[in-house]
Amino acid sequence: MTEITNPGEKKMALVSGRAHPELAEQIAAELGNEVLPSSAYTFANGETYVRFEESVRGKDAFVIQSHPAPINDAMMEQLIMIDSLKRASARSITVVSPFYPYARQDKKHKGREPISARLMSDLYKTAGADRLMSVDLHTAQIQGFFDGPVDHLMAIPLLAGHIKNRVDDVNNVTVVSPDTGRVRVAEQWAELLGGAPLAFVHKTRDVNVPNQAVSKTVVGDVEGRVCVLIDDMIDTGGTIAGAVKVLKDRGAKDVIIAATHAVFSSPAAERLGNCGASEVVVTNTLPLRDDQKFDNLTVLSIAPLIARAIKEVFDEGSVTSLFNGRSN
Amino acid sequence: MTEITNPGEKKMALVSGRAHPELAEQIAAELGNEVLPSSAYTFANGETYVRFEESVRGKDAFVIQSHPAPINDAMMEQLIMIDSLKRASARSITVVSPFYPYARQDKKHKGREPISARLMSDLYKTAGADRLMSVDLHTAQIQGFFDGPVDHLMAIPLLAGHIKNRVDDVNNVTVVSPDTGRVRVAEQWAELLGGAPLAFVHKTRDVNVPNQAVSKTVVGDVEGRVCVLIDDMIDTGGTIAGAVKVLKDRGAKDVIIAATHAVFSSPAAERLGNCGASEVVVTNTLPLRDDQKFDNLTVLSIAPLIARAIKEVFDEGSVTSLFNGRSN
Amino acid sequence: MTEITNPGEKKMALVSGRAHPELAEQIAAELGNEVLPSSAYTFANGETYVRFEESVRGKDAFVIQSHPAPINDAMMEQLIMIDSLKRASARSITVVSPFYPYARQDKKHKGREPISARLMSDLYKTAGADRLMSVDLHTAQIQGFFDGPVDHLMAIPLLAGHIKNRVDDVNNVTVVSPDTGRVRVAEQWAELLGGAPLAFVHKTRDVNVPNQAVSKTVVGDVEGRVCVLIDDMIDTGGTIAGAVKVLKDRGAKDVIIAATHAVFSSPAAERLGNCGASEVVVTNTLPLRDDQKFDNLTVLSIAPLIARAIKEVFDEGSVTSLFNGRSN
Amino acid sequence: MTEITNPGEKKMALVSGRAHPELAEQIAAELGNEVLPSSAYTFANGETYVRFEESVRGKDAFVIQSHPAPINDAMMEQLIMIDSLKRASARSITVVSPFYPYARQDKKHKGREPISARLMSDLYKTAGADRLMSVDLHTAQIQGFFDGPVDHLMAIPLLAGHIKNRVDDVNNVTVVSPDTGRVRVAEQWAELLGGAPLAFVHKTRDVNVPNQAVSKTVVGDVEGRVCVLIDDMIDTGGTIAGAVKVLKDRGAKDVIIAATHAVFSSPAAERLGNCGASEVVVTNTLPLRDDQKFDNLTVLSIAPLIARAIKEVFDEGSVTSLFNGRSN
Amino acid sequence: MTEITNPGEKKMALVSGRAHPELAEQIAAELGNEVLPSSAYTFANGETYVRFEESVRGKDAFVIQSHPAPINDAMMEQLIMIDSLKRASARSITVVSPFYPYARQDKKHKGREPISARLMSDLYKTAGADRLMSVDLHTAQIQGFFDGPVDHLMAIPLLAGHIKNRVDDVNNVTVVSPDTGRVRVAEQWAELLGGAPLAFVHKTRDVNVPNQAVSKTVVGDVEGRVCVLIDDMIDTGGTIAGAVKVLKDRGAKDVIIAATHAVFSSPAAERLGNCGASEVVVTNTLPLRDDQKFDNLTVLSIAPLIARAIKEVFDEGSVTSLFNGRSN
Amino acid sequence: MTEITNPGEKKMALVSGRAHPELAEQIAAELGNEVLPSSAYTFANGETYVRFEESVRGKDAFVIQSHPAPINDAMMEQLIMIDSLKRASARSITVVSPFYPYARQDKKHKGREPISARLMSDLYKTAGADRLMSVDLHTAQIQGFFDGPVDHLMAIPLLAGHIKNRVDDVNNVTVVSPDTGRVRVAEQWAELLGGAPLAFVHKTRDVNVPNQAVSKTVVGDVEGRVCVLIDDMIDTGGTIAGAVKVLKDRGAKDVIIAATHAVFSSPAAERLGNCGASEVVVTNTLPLRDDQKFDNLTVLSIAPLIARAIKEVFDEGSVTSLFNGRSN
Repeated sequence: MTEITNPGEKKMALVSGRAHPELAEQIAAELGNEVLPSSAYTFANGETYVRFEESVRGKDAFVIQSHPAPINDAMMEQLIMIDSLKRASARSITVVSPFYPYARQDKKHKGREPISARLMSDLYKTAGADRLMSVDLHTAQIQGFFDGPVDHLMAIPLLAGHIKNRVDDVNNVTVVSPDTGRVRVAEQWAELLGGAPLAFVHKTRDVNVPNQAVSKTVVGDVEGRVCVLIDDMIDTGGTIAGAVKVLKDRGAKDVIIAATHAVFSSPAAERLGNCGASEVVVTNTLPLRDDQKFDNLTVLSIAPLIARAIKEVFDEGSVTSLFNGRSN
Repeated sequence: MTEITNPGEKKMALVSGRAHPELAEQIAAELGNEVLPSSAYTFANGETYVRFEESVRGKDAFVIQSHPAPINDAMMEQLIMIDSLKRASARSITVVSPFYPYARQDKKHKGREPISARLMSDLYKTAGADRLMSVDLHTAQIQGFFDGPVDHLMAIPLLAGHIKNRVDDVNNVTVVSPDTGRVRVAEQWAELLGGAPLAFVHKTRDVNVPNQAVSKTVVGDVEGRVCVLIDDMIDTGGTIAGAVKVLKDRGAKDVIIAATHAVFSSPAAERLGNCGASEVVVTNTLPLRDDQKFDNLTVLSIAPLIARAIKEVFDEGSVTSLFNGRSN
Repeated sequence: MTEITNPGEKKMALVSGRAHPELAEQIAAELGNEVLPSSAYTFANGETYVRFEESVRGKDAFVIQSHPAPINDAMMEQLIMIDSLKRASARSITVVSPFYPYARQDKKHKGREPISARLMSDLYKTAGADRLMSVDLHTAQIQGFFDGPVDHLMAIPLLAGHIKNRVDDVNNVTVVSPDTGRVRVAEQWAELLGGAPLAFVHKTRDVNVPNQAVSKTVVGDVEGRVCVLIDDMIDTGGTIAGAVKVLKDRGAKDVIIAATHAVFSSPAAERLGNCGASEVVVTNTLPLRDDQKFDNLTVLSIAPLIARAIKEVFDEGSVTSLFNGRSN
Repeated sequence: MTEITNPGEKKMALVSGRAHPELAEQIAAELGNEVLPSSAYTFANGETYVRFEESVRGKDAFVIQSHPAPINDAMMEQLIMIDSLKRASARSITVVSPFYPYARQDKKHKGREPISARLMSDLYKTAGADRLMSVDLHTAQIQGFFDGPVDHLMAIPLLAGHIKNRVDDVNNVTVVSPDTGRVRVAEQWAELLGGAPLAFVHKTRDVNVPNQAVSKTVVGDVEGRVCVLIDDMIDTGGTIAGAVKVLKDRGAKDVIIAATHAVFSSPAAERLGNCGASEVVVTNTLPLRDDQKFDNLTVLSIAPLIARAIKEVFDEGSVTSLFNGRSN
Repeated sequence: MTEITNPGEKKMALVSGRAHPELAEQIAAELGNEVLPSSAYTFANGETYVRFEESVRGKDAFVIQSHPAPINDAMMEQLIMIDSLKRASARSITVVSPFYPYARQDKKHKGREPISARLMSDLYKTAGADRLMSVDLHTAQIQGFFDGPVDHLMAIPLLAGHIKNRVDDVNNVTVVSPDTGRVRVAEQWAELLGGAPLAFVHKTRDVNVPNQAVSKTVVGDVEGRVCVLIDDMIDTGGTIAGAVKVLKDRGAKDVIIAATHAVFSSPAAERLGNCGASEVVVTNTLPLRDDQKFDNLTVLSIAPLIARAIKEVFDEGSVTSLFNGRSN
Repeated sequence: MTEITNPGEKKMALVSGRAHPELAEQIAAELGNEVLPSSAYTFANGETYVRFEESVRGKDAFVIQSHPAPINDAMMEQLIMIDSLKRASARSITVVSPFYPYARQDKKHKGREPISARLMSDLYKTAGADRLMSVDLHTAQIQGFFDGPVDHLMAIPLLAGHIKNRVDDVNNVTVVSPDTGRVRVAEQWAELLGGAPLAFVHKTRDVNVPNQAVSKTVVGDVEGRVCVLIDDMIDTGGTIAGAVKVLKDRGAKDVIIAATHAVFSSPAAERLGNCGASEVVVTNTLPLRDDQKFDNLTVLSIAPLIARAIKEVFDEGSVTSLFNGRSN
């Protein structure tokens, strides 16, 4: 029998939604590649349309999308892109969502609530995604929401490296969690900063005084210390700005804010610019409009980290070291 | 053995998204029921939150949502509501989407496009929907996109009834399709109007004259006739307004526009108000803001039809007559 | 660690059901390949048996089957072939069904009907198919019934090319749809024939005369024209032969019938041979027995088109041009 | 809130394919019910069409179909009926296939074969079946092919009861398996007949004589005995008629053949009528045409057993005793 | 047509694995019901066998199983029970696992690890479970691992009520988390105890002294306070006993340990009995052998809470208050 | 556009559970490969932990696990390994379970039983397995339980080859099945031994003598013959040792026992060592502790057969000959 064969070489296709094209271009540049040309537009009634201008048949596609407001449009566009790739015979489809959408709704806080973070994983899967890549998930358990491989990248080392270069004496640093839910993450920071002490802020009520307002308490020593106030994301900035005030009231010498995801919904820029922190350090997992920026803001690029991860996934190398042990 | 039993009675829960609360209330009123109270709001970064205020455990839930712009928000809210109902142990979940979202992207027009209409059905299913109810689908094949029962309601008899009452002589009516894809639907209209003749408009090019602009042709006799120009939906109104002009040019005595779904993206109101049609008849499957309305617009309520369908589904009766043979 | 590796080369396997072996052989010849030997027979009680004589492990299999009567046997044989390939570790399985089975039952015309066209897609998927290839689907929405890539090939250019060579003056051609549901397809033909005018035939009733028989009307100008009467398939030929008669009655100069799928159930041959059309042009997506043939019948081979599509799919090239924009 | 409720009563719908309507009517009569009216016909090209004439919404449907030749038509019709019931909102769908289709292809005998019996279970599930009821499966493991409840009814007691009444002295009976694969079933028969001895027939070859023809051997004592030669099904009757001859040659006094499923493909009637057995006892799980019948044939009705099982399933009673411990 | 109907009444079936029969009996007694009789045993090679002695057809089954060591046997027995119920036509299957198995492996701590907690949810689903009920999940995100309703019961109020009755002055209580990961849970405790202050213990290293051993730090004020040291589960007791020592060293007046799940692997009994805590309070979500008990141990029964939850689920009532807002 | 490509070479990863590491090492040695290093341990409460020490990204993984007692631990460890491989992006996952777990529960023997053998296939699939390899399944129908390719290896030729070398005169051999369910397998043996005659043992009762104990009967001639008593597995050895006694009583000259799977639960070693058989031949699909061994036991290695099969699967060659026609 005549045998028809084909060498079976693999090819990469980088595709990008419209939410944060600069990030996709930075990633492509790091890889020495280009973003696949596509047509995407929004119909008058808000429906999203996507079409790829070049063949993706047999290619390993990476669907880069950021999820700023209006987040539902970003999500739906990404799902439609995945559907389009699936029907165009892409060989594999990896979702690259640096900021995982709806990450905060990762459990039921009350009865009859959704678990939207799990729903997003299921929507990705249904549309046709094989694999998911994200940065600093709100809780690491979200890895388990997706039925397939998840590459969970870690921006904390990038942020901590910046802090170490900036502070005069790392021994004078205390890592502070803005609430009780981030103390574990503060501990990871503390290890990266050479064993710094921990503290956290939380809300409390004096039960003996009815109707008394909630007040904020600091647990841990912060007086005279450089406080690195950390979080995975900053949305309107209310909690974090409130925490700066309490730390200052408790005698903190300086406060630096560090977070991976700069959601920065209004009035975050105003609050963070005026809260008394000497610097606010974030990454560009989300795009920032000019009105979301302010004086003491530093934005580090996440593109090199994502590019290296995409390369390793495509080449099927071992990337545990890259992801600080949290992926493969 | 002691036997613990329970009578197994069924209970209905009507829930509504925020896109068109009036329609849900009209439906509830028709049923002598109330919409289940819920909390729904949008976070600063655009994420949608939904929670039901009363138990839905064991109930047959009907999730009423309309899909105007911004349509992705309406869709995502509905998916999150379904997830919430599933996790709160609703007995069954029926999606009620009078205007099916992304219905026009029901096939690949070119390579590397999505089939978004199928994707929406799959997203509904993934979130937890058991059954789907919609009105005048763009193509009836969309019924086959959902893996489960679909109740396909028909608004054409409602619209045709209005037309019959309005025109002086139904024998002078010609039913006109605005393009080649709606001629079959025009034929259904013609039967409801007692065997009226058909015509259609389409774009053409004179191939002997290079670079000549596209012109519109009418196939069928319209001179001196009352033309009922029909469509399933009107979006920006360009095609339909263009068709009115051509019909008038060909000597039509009067033109009445009738469509089920009033998407009415800008500049639809301006175009339709000034196109020369004596009346534009639609239903309220989609909400209309004041700036989407105009003088000769008539809006018929779809609520009685949907309410009867919900009642029949809940009572498990035979509803073929109701749906004009298109459902069960 | 000693690494065991393998070059990962891809291999093609062409397999064929028993419904139309000539077509599979033509396709294989176009590809310079051979159909994989298999044993297939029918047990005395009608059960179908299939076994492949050579290994298909790791190969990209293309399962070519045509669907003439007895269509259920052809369908079941194809499903059993797919199951066999799945269990024998084929790397991928592409269904090649030039005439999509049960395509006409693509929606519910009345309550309590099946949507058999969707069911067929689900049966293919369940048996193990990854991808589907078909020619001129009855409605393009059937693409959305299959959860995976669909290559929708287009035979209309092949047929239209034949017509162009045959008629003296393409400017004298009118494209006619035999009913209201094919006018859109007629429009596609018209574009391929250089902007020819359109017409359609439909059934009507005079509502003022009770019990009057249905009569046929032509909408559009056909007098003195060469009418190309088009359809996607011809089954018993009743509708199409009736349309020829009406066109002739309305003064058509000549009628040529063109359709992709020659189902030709009895008495199609008799009807078409005697209906007055000067030629009937079809493709060989379905086999024709001698008693299904007649004098003025022309059969064009679809094999080159399918062979090119299989080659492109196997080589993972871009095939949008091949499929006239309808695939990838 | 006004509460809309409904008593939640269950209703049964008995539906039947066209393969063996008498059986469905017998079952309905046993239940004091009627078969739901339906329209079913075959299009000229062999496509099957089914529509139910009354509502099945919310009903527990039982889809009775027998699977004689042409078996693929019977199977496809049943799948299409299931699809139709699913889309018409039946509450549950139970497949009633007294003779399980493709039961003999329940494993791979050689490489690159299908496992068609598993495929049939998956096709039923895909179409929408919730539960399966069958009689005397070829191997009991087929129960495990269906992902859901299976009610495996047992006709052997019915057949054995007939034999006990018929033979003069049950102590003179030997139960004989026609090959090595049915000895376990013969043992079940032996228990029902009060501990009768066992024997089996098998093919053998003398390895010392090259090219010698295969001959049949009897293992066990049959001389002077009344041999009850049992099987689950009889197809063309070759094996079973050959076994009768060998038993007679070995001195059997009488041979009675008993089997549940009378497939009786040609030339079964001729072979069985002339093989020397004094009686052939079967059930009506499959319909028999006149040309499939012969003189010493006895057909017992399976309808009472199936009717009782349907009743128990609908009433959710315990039916283990009914099914001789093989079901629930 | 004669209509066969059935009242559709619901019936409950309580079934229990062999890991903790006392708990199932307590739950049944609370419900005024009995555990359904079953046969369960372990074959010589360790395979588990289960069979129910009474019909479960059409019943709502609750599969109560506890997960002590050997936990894989408990899990596999529960999966086999679910499979058995599914195949015996139970109407619904609710898994009742008071201690969720493999809850600690809820994320990848390093590359190439499993997420066993998600795997368990998927195994339950595959076997046939519709719904899951558990108590104090290790992380609330595990709710999102199961694709269906999860009733997440809360034992903390039961434990906190006991503490409130026991301590002299609730104003002198500090709630202490034994590590950085439980501070959020400590905060929930603090609210139930009227706004008590918080503290936590964590491991630290002096980065200026190479090779220095890890030491434990307390963050928060504990001197002279009654420390309630809380956790969701206690396994070998090493961490918790170490925390008691540090608290005592820092001047704590008294330490009480409270945890929901008493895993108590050796040497937990010895460690906890001698660690200096005045009392160890747990629930009976897991069975305790005599050698796992010690003097100052208090075991509260979780049966009333689970029984009420099962009753509400069966009756389809609203149980949000019961579950402290965490379920429905 | 810059194209990033990769040669797409395939790599093998052999991983092993802890149940029978010697077998995995023998297989690796046959392949000239090594078992991938992994960390696996059991937590104090019995939970299993697995982590791979090297990257498996993009590799074809073969998960070798044996299933001796405690079998649930072996099964759960294998499932967790599969989950870990899936989440670490293995390219394909083939389960290698030489002794298929729970194979004997392959059907419902009574109502309300599980079909555990099907459940195991579904658990493998859910965890992420693509393909299954096993040796001498208890019934070949288990192949159909797994939804994907199954390579069913055959150890009988290995065992039969040993027997042929050992006996003086193969013409004096009778193959004996220990019960009615293995006669078909005995027939396969007989063919491999050159057409040896068959016999079987079964239990019987004299129905005329009430309360009489069950006695064992031999059907077929064994007097003066060398009886090869065969089975797929030997568990406690009761049935097989009983069969030896009956054969000896009936005058067998010698009895040799041959079985693929040596489960050997206590008191198998004692029973088999003293039953009178001259030799017991098995393979090492299961590990044997010293107390499971005895004097006349011969253990043949299955590793070469499995290694060849893995090689063929990895290289995508045709392996029908290897598997004696039962695989591909």
